[in-house]
Amino acid sequence: MKLDFVIKNGRVVDPSREIDQVMDIAIRGNHIVDLPDDWECARVIDASGCYVFPGLIDYHAHVYGSGSNVGVHADYLLATGVTAAVDPGTAGSSNFGSFYGGTVVPSKVRIKSYLCMYGSGQIDYNIIEKFDRAEYRMDDIRRTVEAYRDNILGFKLRMSKGVATGIDAMDATRELADELGLGICVHTSNPVTPLKEVADRLKAGDIYCHCYHGWGDETILDDSGRVKDFVLAARERGVLMDAANGRMNFSIRVCRKALEQGFLPDIIASDWLDDKYNMSNTAKSLTFVMAKYLELGMPLAEVVRCVTETPAKAMKMEGKIGTLQAGAYADVAIFRMIDRTAVHRDCENEVFKTHRLLVPQMVFVDGEPAFCQADFALMD
Amino acid sequence: MKLDFVIKNGRVVDPSREIDQVMDIAIRGNHIVDLPDDWECARVIDASGCYVFPGLIDYHAHVYGSGSNVGVHADYLLATGVTAAVDPGTAGSSNFGSFYGGTVVPSKVRIKSYLCMYGSGQIDYNIIEKFDRAEYRMDDIRRTVEAYRDNILGFKLRMSKGVATGIDAMDATRELADELGLGICVHTSNPVTPLKEVADRLKAGDIYCHCYHGWGDETILDDSGRVKDFVLAARERGVLMDAANGRMNFSIRVCRKALEQGFLPDIIASDWLDDKYNMSNTAKSLTFVMAKYLELGMPLAEVVRCVTETPAKAMKMEGKIGTLQAGAYADVAIFRMIDRTAVHRDCENEVFKTHRLLVPQMVFVDGEPAFCQADFALMD
Amino acid sequence: MKLDFVIKNGRVVDPSREIDQVMDIAIRGNHIVDLPDDWECARVIDASGCYVFPGLIDYHAHVYGSGSNVGVHADYLLATGVTAAVDPGTAGSSNFGSFYGGTVVPSKVRIKSYLCMYGSGQIDYNIIEKFDRAEYRMDDIRRTVEAYRDNILGFKLRMSKGVATGIDAMDATRELADELGLGICVHTSNPVTPLKEVADRLKAGDIYCHCYHGWGDETILDDSGRVKDFVLAARERGVLMDAANGRMNFSIRVCRKALEQGFLPDIIASDWLDDKYNMSNTAKSLTFVMAKYLELGMPLAEVVRCVTETPAKAMKMEGKIGTLQAGAYADVAIFRMIDRTAVHRDCENEVFKTHRLLVPQMVFVDGEPAFCQADFALMD
Amino acid sequence: MKLDFVIKNGRVVDPSREIDQVMDIAIRGNHIVDLPDDWECARVIDASGCYVFPGLIDYHAHVYGSGSNVGVHADYLLATGVTAAVDPGTAGSSNFGSFYGGTVVPSKVRIKSYLCMYGSGQIDYNIIEKFDRAEYRMDDIRRTVEAYRDNILGFKLRMSKGVATGIDAMDATRELADELGLGICVHTSNPVTPLKEVADRLKAGDIYCHCYHGWGDETILDDSGRVKDFVLAARERGVLMDAANGRMNFSIRVCRKALEQGFLPDIIASDWLDDKYNMSNTAKSLTFVMAKYLELGMPLAEVVRCVTETPAKAMKMEGKIGTLQAGAYADVAIFRMIDRTAVHRDCENEVFKTHRLLVPQMVFVDGEPAFCQADFALMD
Repeated sequence: MKLDFVIKNGRVVDPSREIDQVMDIAIRGNHIVDLPDDWECARVIDASGCYVFPGLIDYHAHVYGSGSNVGVHADYLLATGVTAAVDPGTAGSSNFGSFYGGTVVPSKVRIKSYLCMYGSGQIDYNIIEKFDRAEYRMDDIRRTVEAYRDNILGFKLRMSKGVATGIDAMDATRELADELGLGICVHTSNPVTPLKEVADRLKAGDIYCHCYHGWGDETILDDSGRVKDFVLAARERGVLMDAANGRMNFSIRVCRKALEQGFLPDIIASDWLDDKYNMSNTAKSLTFVMAKYLELGMPLAEVVRCVTETPAKAMKMEGKIGTLQAGAYADVAIFRMIDRTAVHRDCENEVFKTHRLLVPQMVFVDGEPAFCQADFALMD
Repeated sequence: MKLDFVIKNGRVVDPSREIDQVMDIAIRGNHIVDLPDDWECARVIDASGCYVFPGLIDYHAHVYGSGSNVGVHADYLLATGVTAAVDPGTAGSSNFGSFYGGTVVPSKVRIKSYLCMYGSGQIDYNIIEKFDRAEYRMDDIRRTVEAYRDNILGFKLRMSKGVATGIDAMDATRELADELGLGICVHTSNPVTPLKEVADRLKAGDIYCHCYHGWGDETILDDSGRVKDFVLAARERGVLMDAANGRMNFSIRVCRKALEQGFLPDIIASDWLDDKYNMSNTAKSLTFVMAKYLELGMPLAEVVRCVTETPAKAMKMEGKIGTLQAGAYADVAIFRMIDRTAVHRDCENEVFKTHRLLVPQMVFVDGEPAFCQADFALMD
Repeated sequence: MKLDFVIKNGRVVDPSREIDQVMDIAIRGNHIVDLPDDWECARVIDASGCYVFPGLIDYHAHVYGSGSNVGVHADYLLATGVTAAVDPGTAGSSNFGSFYGGTVVPSKVRIKSYLCMYGSGQIDYNIIEKFDRAEYRMDDIRRTVEAYRDNILGFKLRMSKGVATGIDAMDATRELADELGLGICVHTSNPVTPLKEVADRLKAGDIYCHCYHGWGDETILDDSGRVKDFVLAARERGVLMDAANGRMNFSIRVCRKALEQGFLPDIIASDWLDDKYNMSNTAKSLTFVMAKYLELGMPLAEVVRCVTETPAKAMKMEGKIGTLQAGAYADVAIFRMIDRTAVHRDCENEVFKTHRLLVPQMVFVDGEPAFCQADFALMD
Repeated sequence: MKLDFVIKNGRVVDPSREIDQVMDIAIRGNHIVDLPDDWECARVIDASGCYVFPGLIDYHAHVYGSGSNVGVHADYLLATGVTAAVDPGTAGSSNFGSFYGGTVVPSKVRIKSYLCMYGSGQIDYNIIEKFDRAEYRMDDIRRTVEAYRDNILGFKLRMSKGVATGIDAMDATRELADELGLGICVHTSNPVTPLKEVADRLKAGDIYCHCYHGWGDETILDDSGRVKDFVLAARERGVLMDAANGRMNFSIRVCRKALEQGFLPDIIASDWLDDKYNMSNTAKSLTFVMAKYLELGMPLAEVVRCVTETPAKAMKMEGKIGTLQAGAYADVAIFRMIDRTAVHRDCENEVFKTHRLLVPQMVFVDGEPAFCQADFALMD
């Protein structure tokens, strides 16, 4: 069989199949294929000493670059190893068409979305949202969902002070999500109501995002530092705990305590905004965020699962992305793990150091090389 | 010479050259050409009994359809006879890129813009704008202007209650406009400050829009019904009086009084929003709005000037559009004038009847037929 | 119930439900709804004396305007009463992404497609296609189909002299269509092989297009003027006979003979290219083409079926478009039928006169007015 | 002064100002500024041990990804250090609108273009072009140039066997270029006419591309290996020698001989097609191509000039890009130079080894970080 690429000798970590071993990955067209006994290939990539993961999925990344003041050009994600992303409500019913046509369709990174319950979306830091039932234009939202159902996973709302005014915003969202068979992605930092009220309204597959935040009156921890029962109950019901990091939505103190109790994230995400990459100590390319969980002792395969298998399921693309099984889209990310100290600063300005970093070497999306560092994949 | 289209026997009204007579118009490629003595043409349009105008220019039309809840799909304008439009601030610095790439570039109607001083623009009816100097992100605006200088004519702000908080918003806009050599388009309905303060800050080429509004504490008329001196002075300085109609921005009472005093509009515009066409009695396809001024006795050529020559100059496209002179782009609109009563209702719910309507028969944009009614231009 | 529009007193012709009677049509949001007993509506349209059809579907219209020399800006179709269209292979695997992102997504008219078997598509009149199996890049085509399966109905090829070189092109297309579960749309004018070879390879749902052409060595008629058996057999199998008109693909002689034998078209289409509208006598806005079939005695409801119910099924959108039943998208076209002689000229330069024309008055797409003639829907 | 980024301690090579020294670069908004005495900056990048260049310009890169089978997604260039590119005729008059709207406008990399003289452009490898005067649709080309004059630098044609049929194609292009005041970019590999005929028709600012090709009957070298007089004369007149590499357009033998005689390139370009990056030994990310010239002894500053200052002038963006002077757009590329053997194979399958590579660390475009490797710019 003629193959387009064979990635040889890399350490493949594919949690979807519980694989963590040195093996070869074969690409034909835009798909992963099983390496046949008899193959030829013009481009054999030597990945010795590297990790080979399914293309990473960033489940919380603001990528409506051209239509907002907070979003980032989506395809910048590719060179960080991210090949699929979910936009958490940057666009609402008033501008989703523009987001879809101008960002989702032309981007090489695969994008799905939560639709903001507020018509204008979260396009500006100083937009004044009022997440009240009275402000929701339900018919506009229904129409948007009908037009873009393949793309919209559910609704985004922020149950934060200065945004929502009360639990009624959540109730109205819940009703509409149930009516339309969609999910909910709820921002929980700086909460405007008791978090129990929010968590209790979430169902299996919904996203409790910024789960390790430390901002505002309440976190997932009680006064004694234990993860609260309603949070554990939510997870038990299948609510996904999303450690979307962001600038203000991560507390190393909360995270450490939670992990000590075995409360690991289901999803690790960046919350990319305009402060992307790793140059700011609060910022957050996805691998930069992953470094924290590795430092805290979470096994590599579990960290990778939070950016591959689990978000792939939540995107309803299980078996298509977030996996290296035959038949999946050929989204592959190759990294070198290096020893390097990096300093992170959290929302409370606490410093946290990590000592290993994943450095992207080559990234495939849909079978096509989307990034290759200049000293990688040199042939002869 | 081989021509692409010849429009014969129509009554050509072209205020840019003070022409109002039956004559023929020739199109070659995307330009108007002088009809040569020796020509051949496969497509000769018989416009007997019709008016032939330069393609109409709607200087105030919200056309950011895909990215807002107020805008309309731009190319709907074409079949109403409009071939060029100016968007009055639907987009701001946060989403102008999306407006440009998704609306300005792909549309067949020619579009220029005023950039909203508020980052998110006027994309939603219930967006809460705060036109304060403190809210203006001047560097973002400067950067947007630099990137899209060919398209942006100036800045839009609304000096209305519930939007701006005071004259400081106007001052900050003035300063930036002067710094960058741009104009200002100011919404004057339901004013938040004395209108004199607003008008006095406008310069030649700036747009005083909704000049015949009747909404709020103050209009252009004083208690005795006379046009105020500062309004006359503004016009004297070269400020353009834009009778953008909209849903709430036109009072037949104010308009009639003003016209009686000879205070005619410089620009007639629709203020297209989602209630377009003529089916609502407050609404406003451009010819539907033009009918009012014809009814009030304004000469046809002057009405046409307000939707061709004058807005073309304001768009900095004099000689290119808004005219049928040789060398201009072949933007042409052919109408039948019919006797037909239509009922209009203004912002104060007053009823006003008109008795003549311009009905589009065929529209060319850039030399290409963009609309042709099914019973027009039948050949043999 | 609050309705958005009620269209009253029109003569509704909806072949999908065998309706032809005066009745009212109600729109709520972007859907047709049954008119409830108790309703209110701010916009009641008086369609007395008019026909009300489902929005017309043009199953053969080249709408890849920005990326070809043959296509037309898609949204020009709207003001002719057409609310959905199928592009017959203007784009191939090399440029389908551009067609999809630049035309399908931003257009208001609904668009589905046949993918050209040739990589570059039919973007230029003088492109030299070679529809050989050897030229087909099957893997590129498979990948394009996978990426745009919701949009691509099947494959387009032209079995014409100067394009295909032999029946092998058809065979290769057939194999791929069967493999992928897709249809075929085959251009039959100026045939390069015996038409029987082409027709015999078509299956139920495939499109035999330009069925009344008179160009080249062979038509659907035998020497005695009878429709050939293999053509009748193809239709019997469910192959759809598409009377796409075009510039060179319609012979009044062939059409008249066929209709006399009861061989009516399944689909009537325009084959819009850059000579659109009605000003050329060979040209072809959809209603202009429909006039021919009315003139030849085909019942109005059957003509309407060929541009609504049948193409809707072929687009796999039965019940969603091409019908005015409750739950369908609110795509509606309102026409006046006028007595007016029009001259048509066919590919053999034969003249044919029609005496009735359908003139668009108002068009809704997805519940939104996309066109309204200036003297229609005037309210009081 | 508040700065957005300061890049410290890097070795700045900016040929536009003959600078090659360790110094700091300051960015405010989207511009380079002189570092003031008194500044503050939240993001200081430590570029010790790195080279800091103006963002690289790739003057010959096929970036019409969505509308062709040869082009690449434009923004993939960014992570290779390229911030501006010129597309050499992938689009022609038939599809330039699609290229502009779908690639030029939404891309972050700055793009200008040569318009292909053939309507369909060079969108497919197996498209059969006929670069004859008779095939050129001059009016379509004129119209395209008028609509996109800011973007179109001139005309592209390929004077190759199987493409052009003779020197008449060149003459017709020359005439049109002179008429419109544009340049010419001519592909010279596998020439169809004596190269002297081609070269003699080029003027100052025109592009003689693939100057070191070894394909076909003739190269720039005579039988004794000397650069031919008419080539030297062309350069003397100001014709720019573009060493666009491509897959088949570079011969190490020709290049080495030419450089030995002091015949250096004016422009070094990649000719990106679908085989991009460095994994193929014939392929050609821009820095991979630059490595060849460094290996052959060309001074680093001269190599950098060929991808910054000179192409910036040819793009008519002198002072705006290709320089790090104050006032320029903040397009900056930071590289590490590493010792690493890489194997290149040329069009004649000759092997050539290079020993140093420039590896991108961080790239800014318009003041925004567009790429940052995961182990770079770590702060504390």
